[in-house]
Amino acid sequence: MAQEYQDAGALICELARAFYSLGWVSGTGGGICLRDGDRVVVAPSGVQKERMRPEEMFTIALDGSLLNRPSDPALRPSECSALFLKAINLRGAGAVIHSHSIHAVMATLAFDAEFSVSHLEMIKGIRGHAYDDRLVVPIIENTARECDLAEALEEAIVAYPRTHAVLVRRHGAYIWGADWIAAKTHAECYDYLFRAAVEMRRAGIPTVTQGGADDARVPTRRPPAGYRS
Amino acid sequence: MAQEYQDAGALICELARAFYSLGWVSGTGGGICLRDGDRVVVAPSGVQKERMRPEEMFTIALDGSLLNRPSDPALRPSECSALFLKAINLRGAGAVIHSHSIHAVMATLAFDAEFSVSHLEMIKGIRGHAYDDRLVVPIIENTARECDLAEALEEAIVAYPRTHAVLVRRHGAYIWGADWIAAKTHAECYDYLFRAAVEMRRAGIPTVTQGGADDARVPTRRPPAGYRS
Amino acid sequence: MAQEYQDAGALICELARAFYSLGWVSGTGGGICLRDGDRVVVAPSGVQKERMRPEEMFTIALDGSLLNRPSDPALRPSECSALFLKAINLRGAGAVIHSHSIHAVMATLAFDAEFSVSHLEMIKGIRGHAYDDRLVVPIIENTARECDLAEALEEAIVAYPRTHAVLVRRHGAYIWGADWIAAKTHAECYDYLFRAAVEMRRAGIPTVTQGGADDARVPTRRPPAGYRS
Amino acid sequence: MAQEYQDAGALICELARAFYSLGWVSGTGGGICLRDGDRVVVAPSGVQKERMRPEEMFTIALDGSLLNRPSDPALRPSECSALFLKAINLRGAGAVIHSHSIHAVMATLAFDAEFSVSHLEMIKGIRGHAYDDRLVVPIIENTARECDLAEALEEAIVAYPRTHAVLVRRHGAYIWGADWIAAKTHAECYDYLFRAAVEMRRAGIPTVTQGGADDARVPTRRPPAGYRS
Repeated sequence: MAQEYQDAGALICELARAFYSLGWVSGTGGGICLRDGDRVVVAPSGVQKERMRPEEMFTIALDGSLLNRPSDPALRPSECSALFLKAINLRGAGAVIHSHSIHAVMATLAFDAEFSVSHLEMIKGIRGHAYDDRLVVPIIENTARECDLAEALEEAIVAYPRTHAVLVRRHGAYIWGADWIAAKTHAECYDYLFRAAVEMRRAGIPTVTQGGADDARVPTRRPPAGYRS
Repeated sequence: MAQEYQDAGALICELARAFYSLGWVSGTGGGICLRDGDRVVVAPSGVQKERMRPEEMFTIALDGSLLNRPSDPALRPSECSALFLKAINLRGAGAVIHSHSIHAVMATLAFDAEFSVSHLEMIKGIRGHAYDDRLVVPIIENTARECDLAEALEEAIVAYPRTHAVLVRRHGAYIWGADWIAAKTHAECYDYLFRAAVEMRRAGIPTVTQGGADDARVPTRRPPAGYRS
Repeated sequence: MAQEYQDAGALICELARAFYSLGWVSGTGGGICLRDGDRVVVAPSGVQKERMRPEEMFTIALDGSLLNRPSDPALRPSECSALFLKAINLRGAGAVIHSHSIHAVMATLAFDAEFSVSHLEMIKGIRGHAYDDRLVVPIIENTARECDLAEALEEAIVAYPRTHAVLVRRHGAYIWGADWIAAKTHAECYDYLFRAAVEMRRAGIPTVTQGGADDARVPTRRPPAGYRS
Repeated sequence: MAQEYQDAGALICELARAFYSLGWVSGTGGGICLRDGDRVVVAPSGVQKERMRPEEMFTIALDGSLLNRPSDPALRPSECSALFLKAINLRGAGAVIHSHSIHAVMATLAFDAEFSVSHLEMIKGIRGHAYDDRLVVPIIENTARECDLAEALEEAIVAYPRTHAVLVRRHGAYIWGADWIAAKTHAECYDYLFRAAVEMRRAGIPTVTQGGADDARVPTRRPPAGYRS
């Protein structure tokens, strides 16, 4: 089991390097956590995400209590931990990605309370969504301290049962999935859709086409059965 | 011969990594197939394209029947297979690339039934086309299920004998060539042209210059003799 | 100690390769220096920054006098050295990055005497700044010769005690931090903010939101205590 | 000496991979040649530039005659050879880069007979130019066949003695320097300036500021003395 946690740490480091090259975790921002049974491995706060090492990871319980910490006393667990746990506990997420992608931020400046698009093939990459669905991502307002986002994040997760992401105005996005592959796939698809929607707006093209099924604030049609909740 | 299939699988994996870095196959979308005599090697569906391994490939016959499958029972052959076979059987393509490039999608939003450009040097990279030709790529409407694209794709291929690509509205493009090098070269040139045309439109510059020879829906002037059809 | 200088040189080379891939030091432009106690290791001038070797570095004293030079007689120390020393001596910087990023240059064309943004999460990556602060970066006018920038750079550093960067019109930016990690983090955050602000201006979105605390030309609220000045 | 040619070939392959990642030689387009005394090593035509091997290079004399060819009979020397030789013979260039960069192409669509910018620091990266010079690059019209560009290219080189590049409308650019480092540096600076100028035009910012010294069609002020002509 110690080996598993080590592996989760190595995977977090590898993914963080990939996300850095995509512009999601530059400037020590952003982050990622992986659930491993009833434990969650999270990266430290305020460090260069593309240069982390597996032995620098923290392990926390599902209630947020600290189970294991790296030997370096200067490291603190990610400030996103409380937010990561919302997606894990409310949705059974196996991995959560926090992205500072500029496409996510520009999307929050182009939409009001909800980001929404329809009729784009990449929507199909978001679990439970079809091509002609209206994909909706709630946008919550940013707060001065990251931990103060927890309540609004929980409300958004509850109010939008079909979403796998929450946008934070002028900040970025929290994106999750049943495991790290699903979370990464969701993050890539959402980021593509954020970018496409901003470019469509710039070109004067509506992001939602008439006839798209409305999926906001309604029960999920295709329950995410595969989730290990 | 088993070695050849192995090599085709390894090549697909290498190309998929390169296409991922270009933004063509993110979020498990997009794909590629390689023809090897009377067999076609195709990647699995719904997997991270940049992390595939050669032993995960499927081999199908030219009629679409399954000849060989990977040992992992969770893998399914690409949903694009029926579409890939259209280009292979109707055009003698040796390789087909399915791209979700955002440039392709934006191009389908900037043009109606046909994408067309003329007088760009990169047009010469598309087999059978000269600098001052009007390069035309038909755009078909997307469908909720990828396999339902097959009929429209075949009609477009038949109606546009000079094209080596078909755009799918709000989805991406299918691009082929006589072998993997030709398909990759075409994919790079088309992607460049999609991007250039969108930027030209944004700047108010016409994408077709007066005097460009019309190549839409007319017999091909320079038959793709090199194709192994 | 000789080993330390060697390590600083190796680190400069590694960082320069990373900054090249980000577009900050192309065309032999831009640069970086690292302070090592009372010495400063600087790269040579006019060379390909992504291909430098550790043995090509210069070592200068805090007063700019040359302490050690590479054996290759063709190499000259960076023309930025006098400018690097301003941030080191006036702010106790441990590392200074000179970026030619096109985002920095476009930002100097979109703003007059000061670049300013507020209410963007990445502002928190700049030491001493909160999310809802107004982040201000002074913009000085470029000069025909780089060394002639020194006086204006010093004035800007003195006039804006909270800034960790100075923009140079139509040229780029000087960005520093307490050590190489802080300088690199600042450079990534500033570059992101330069790009975001230019995109916001293009979309007609104000870069400063009403109510942002004004931080220009006022004493720093959170002294950069960690600095090794 | 055979070793030197081998090295030139290896260098061409390495540079081509770098230029591919910058988007200058995608789709088998673009190219590079290196002068080695009275011989010129050129890449083959119509091949994937990022996958070339040193043994695939051609060696030609300064009059264009073929001195050495690769053993693969399918390879033909670059169609750019005659154009490369213009810069070599008229300017003593040691290396010439042919770029299909989309920034170069967009620049040719934003300017008429001449591309011109002033007051950008990256202008200093072009040999013989100061920050406040007006940097001018002549734009010649493209032709259906690449070899037909030779005459117009020669005229432009003669008419603009200070330029180290010629733009080709809707095609790309030829850029040279005294050796491969100078050519690569010029190519990076010109590409940056092409991109910046297009973005400035898009934002309504003039690309030439009043008071920039005019350098078009006048004798060079700082002769490129270092050239091995």
